[in-house]
Amino acid sequence: MKGVDHLAHERNKTEFDVDAMKIVWAGSRHAFELSDRMARLVASDPAFQKDGRIRLGRKELFKNTLRKAAHAWKRILELHLTEEEAGWLRNFVDEPSFTDLHWGMFVPAIKGQGTDEQQQKWLPLAYKMQIIGSYAQTELGHGSNVQGLETTATFDPETDEFVIHSPTLTSSKWWPGGLGKVSTHAIVYARLITNGQEHGVHGFIVQLRSLDDHMPIPGITIGDIGMKFGNGAYNTMDNGVLTFDHIRIPRNQMLMRVLQVTREGKCVKSNVPRQLIYGTMVFVRQTIVADASTALARAVCIATRYSAVRRQFGSQDGGMETQVIDYKTQQSRLFPLLASAYAFRFVGEWLKWLYTDVTQRLQANDFSILPEAHACTAGLKSLTTTATADAIEECRKLCGGHGYLCASGLPELFAVYVPACTYEGDNVVLLLQVARFLMKTVSQLGSGKKPVGTTAYLGRVQDLLQCCCDVQTAEDWLKPSVVLEAFEARSARMCVARAQNLSKFENPEDGFAELSADLVEASVAHCQLIVVSKFIDKLQQDIPGKGVNRQLQNLCYIYALNLLHKYLGDFLSTGCITPKQASLANDQLRSLYSQIRPNAIALVDAFNYTDHYLGSVLGRYDGNVYPKLYEEAWKDPLNDSVVPDGYHEYIHPMLKQQLRNARL
Amino acid sequence: MKGVDHLAHERNKTEFDVDAMKIVWAGSRHAFELSDRMARLVASDPAFQKDGRIRLGRKELFKNTLRKAAHAWKRILELHLTEEEAGWLRNFVDEPSFTDLHWGMFVPAIKGQGTDEQQQKWLPLAYKMQIIGSYAQTELGHGSNVQGLETTATFDPETDEFVIHSPTLTSSKWWPGGLGKVSTHAIVYARLITNGQEHGVHGFIVQLRSLDDHMPIPGITIGDIGMKFGNGAYNTMDNGVLTFDHIRIPRNQMLMRVLQVTREGKCVKSNVPRQLIYGTMVFVRQTIVADASTALARAVCIATRYSAVRRQFGSQDGGMETQVIDYKTQQSRLFPLLASAYAFRFVGEWLKWLYTDVTQRLQANDFSILPEAHACTAGLKSLTTTATADAIEECRKLCGGHGYLCASGLPELFAVYVPACTYEGDNVVLLLQVARFLMKTVSQLGSGKKPVGTTAYLGRVQDLLQCCCDVQTAEDWLKPSVVLEAFEARSARMCVARAQNLSKFENPEDGFAELSADLVEASVAHCQLIVVSKFIDKLQQDIPGKGVNRQLQNLCYIYALNLLHKYLGDFLSTGCITPKQASLANDQLRSLYSQIRPNAIALVDAFNYTDHYLGSVLGRYDGNVYPKLYEEAWKDPLNDSVVPDGYHEYIHPMLKQQLRNARL
Repeated sequence: MKGVDHLAHERNKTEFDVDAMKIVWAGSRHAFELSDRMARLVASDPAFQKDGRIRLGRKELFKNTLRKAAHAWKRILELHLTEEEAGWLRNFVDEPSFTDLHWGMFVPAIKGQGTDEQQQKWLPLAYKMQIIGSYAQTELGHGSNVQGLETTATFDPETDEFVIHSPTLTSSKWWPGGLGKVSTHAIVYARLITNGQEHGVHGFIVQLRSLDDHMPIPGITIGDIGMKFGNGAYNTMDNGVLTFDHIRIPRNQMLMRVLQVTREGKCVKSNVPRQLIYGTMVFVRQTIVADASTALARAVCIATRYSAVRRQFGSQDGGMETQVIDYKTQQSRLFPLLASAYAFRFVGEWLKWLYTDVTQRLQANDFSILPEAHACTAGLKSLTTTATADAIEECRKLCGGHGYLCASGLPELFAVYVPACTYEGDNVVLLLQVARFLMKTVSQLGSGKKPVGTTAYLGRVQDLLQCCCDVQTAEDWLKPSVVLEAFEARSARMCVARAQNLSKFENPEDGFAELSADLVEASVAHCQLIVVSKFIDKLQQDIPGKGVNRQLQNLCYIYALNLLHKYLGDFLSTGCITPKQASLANDQLRSLYSQIRPNAIALVDAFNYTDHYLGSVLGRYDGNVYPKLYEEAWKDPLNDSVVPDGYHEYIHPMLKQQLRNARL
Repeated sequence: MKGVDHLAHERNKTEFDVDAMKIVWAGSRHAFELSDRMARLVASDPAFQKDGRIRLGRKELFKNTLRKAAHAWKRILELHLTEEEAGWLRNFVDEPSFTDLHWGMFVPAIKGQGTDEQQQKWLPLAYKMQIIGSYAQTELGHGSNVQGLETTATFDPETDEFVIHSPTLTSSKWWPGGLGKVSTHAIVYARLITNGQEHGVHGFIVQLRSLDDHMPIPGITIGDIGMKFGNGAYNTMDNGVLTFDHIRIPRNQMLMRVLQVTREGKCVKSNVPRQLIYGTMVFVRQTIVADASTALARAVCIATRYSAVRRQFGSQDGGMETQVIDYKTQQSRLFPLLASAYAFRFVGEWLKWLYTDVTQRLQANDFSILPEAHACTAGLKSLTTTATADAIEECRKLCGGHGYLCASGLPELFAVYVPACTYEGDNVVLLLQVARFLMKTVSQLGSGKKPVGTTAYLGRVQDLLQCCCDVQTAEDWLKPSVVLEAFEARSARMCVARAQNLSKFENPEDGFAELSADLVEASVAHCQLIVVSKFIDKLQQDIPGKGVNRQLQNLCYIYALNLLHKYLGDFLSTGCITPKQASLANDQLRSLYSQIRPNAIALVDAFNYTDHYLGSVLGRYDGNVYPKLYEEAWKDPLNDSVVPDGYHEYIHPMLKQQLRNARL
């Protein structure tokens, strides 16, 4: 951070304690210090530099990622990093690679679904990376419908083996990361068949490549599925295609924690409850929500800083032009995204708590909370990833033309982020699951079954159907109870209206199919309520630091009132608020934008992102954008020579009218 | 189109005359035949094949584009193509290149702003491509604010020359396409200075490179600005950076149709009206709207066909699973986009008419219609490009995971399309211009000045403030007058409400700045009304072909009622409709989805896109998706070898625990 700080005048305006806010953002002083240390470690190591990544061809790009992954592992060993530290280090290397799957899917799958014996055998190998694992579930023909997977695992009692086989083209495993070129092993999901009977889809540990020369095991065909969206981005990952031609594995390589296949080929359920896998799902989705807030914060940080650097129009008497961040059109697009980054951060924090809570209850054989926890995490995964993907692109547009340059960092951020809307559950499919749970909850209200957790408000449905929003002035919209009630009433009324419409159908499934688009809207309303309510909960906490709580309040109301404006149709059509009250909310929103404005730069500084991690000329901490953009341009390979390759063959003959005889 | 047609069962369901619809889409039989011929010409020429484009490094990619551009020019000459045919051919080559700027900006600028003498000198050279021109307006520091450009053109009376100079880093020309590596000339926009006085920004023809060896003229620094968003996409174009160190050009290279500089350095206005440039602006924006419908139609064609191929869930008794196009969630996202493609097509057609109309009026010295035409084209450019960019990404998501593969064609389509939201006027800046015009129109209503053209409905503002939506049943939403009135009333009421809010400010400019985000919403409402009304106008025309009109009706109401649903807050808060009526509109919408469903494939077939132009495995005409995806994967360079480059250095040592001593 040497040299002139072009944003110093902005930082001087700050009305709160930025260091305190950094700790709020990180979640704790411990988390702040750890992540800060790892971020700086990565940023200061030349081996991890990211410059020029977007210019590499696929092979070079991939090899470069292998190098970084190996270097990261080397550093992790040398520095004796803890698992938590290693995770942060990999995060700041900021490049999708096979290690994501190995640590994020392969190891957890063995832990969660393997027997003690299996864990003892496989985990030490995995922990030392003596084997590298992938997670082979999705196939060419099936993603969302896991039960429709076609790969088979047929038990052969004669040899005590499973025969893994790809019976069709569409049964080819497709998409698993790390599979294409690197993984030596994978958890392969396949239909279990014993004694001619099917027993559903289960996971099997299958070796894919020789540990000596890395050649695929005979009978296995394996490769990369090709280029994906964007420059750099996910092209550092070898998402793979994999087919099996009757591959034999020992019986004990089926993950048997829940279901066991005996020597005779009989299926025996263990006493471990099946619901345990939902705990893993809650965990994975909680990390996805946390990642959403991180990705969104990166985009917002870039757009906010650049909006303070960029000036356009409004020069008076030859003075400076207006900073684009001072335009209300810019504020009304940017500040709600800034607020969303914080909102998603806090709901992610709460999900972390939820995961611990769920785990404890599961261990005590209490499964009552599971359906609600499952619906809630599904919905929040969908809500936050959809919003983040859209927000990154909006931030890119907020940077005007220069946002289109890879040097802005935003194109790669968008391209690398968008798959989050599809993986671990397609966002629309997830919202339909939430809707199913909501409709079930509403239908059971009469039976006296009390809704729990995030659906508890539905227990007050009679009140919520009749409540009347108590807003007479714009200031009334700054009362937590008023905002919360508006969101609760909207969601409750939408749920009830949908349930009534559903009840008109003879066959509930037909109704659900016909009204599914409406049902998804109710799910969104419910999930937005969760985010708003967790943000409001956060405000009730005792947060140290001068002015910090005030800023969080402003962000919270910006988040909520902007949603109210954007989904005004919901609020008005259900009669939760009046047009006049909506207009007051809008007035309040404008006032909040003015209050947040002087703190905007400090609020993104609080994310504590290094320039290395941001990877954006527009988002530089020091705001020194234009000279660096200019410098960056000359690095393009097209500028290696003044006269471009191809001039003599294609341009010169055109100019000299000699094309007719050219061979092109 | 040989081999099995996997979508034949879909095409058999069609209820209308597809060939007739193809002509409706193309605009005329002539346009259909011409474009069809050119599309096939390009598709059948191996020199124009697009396979693997997304895998090329920047230099190879760029050279490949030079080759194609030269080949295209050669074919144009050999086949003696007309200007119209040549335009279509370049369109179907489907690769941004320097020729876009040459034909689309350089030549029109000389035509529009050059004197007769200048046209006689420069146009023949340009028409034969003996010179290649770019259009150098935008600078590193200025885009939207053209009057803020910093490049100077100072008249030197001693030598009768202009001195073109870049006084600052931010005055570097930045973004012009074709500039970086190819153009020999450019129209350079600079502040005209004569006798120490500034006279605003004007265009100058400046030679940039030697016609002999392509080296930049001494004093000119020029290069490419680097990688942009996406694979392939706009990286085929050499968007450039350009600075001038006191470059001298003869006085007669200033474009002097409107303003002349005399030998003595005096500025003399010609009798050519300045407003003529607005005619060009209307023309350019009309082409952008037409391009929006084309790009949107491509994305919709891909997503629709793939949605009919892809099956997931819903298998009963081991039968086929449900086509995803049959899910209402899919329909409610996809069909409004299909409808938008048609809606934008027809409003683009109308804009073409508007351009002719404006041109004729200008020639008759009638400038009365200009402000309205200008606002209308600005608004429609903004509306259609924003909607199209979002829609392409939505179509990508509608294709699930496989949409993320470059093989789907959608990533490149998105990346190459999004700059349309920024160039030729940032979309938000344009909406603010529309808002200004609307507010002015409303403020003049009392004075008896009658609003014209697309704002004519504001002349009936008193009626529209009081009208009451006449909808009792879902069928009532199929009446053109009902739909039109709802959109007119919404827009009129929003305009009036904004004008009233504005009037509360002492300084109107302060009010405009403070309320700008609200004003933008009124502009959007107005522009959506235009699109709806032009679609309804289209339905009144006598359109031949069995069932064609019926399909267009369905699309028109899907377009309108989906907007009504999406912007329900506007309609309800202004009291244009009731929640009950909104709910009926929603019922009607679902019914329309069911009616369009069997015709969906035929409605995208009517775009008449070749597989070459679509460039998508998922959108193949024959629906043979899976085998082709599988084939495509193996073409990735990573699959050149079974064991990847980098294995020995980085993977093997990791597996063998030999990393510690490795140099990485």
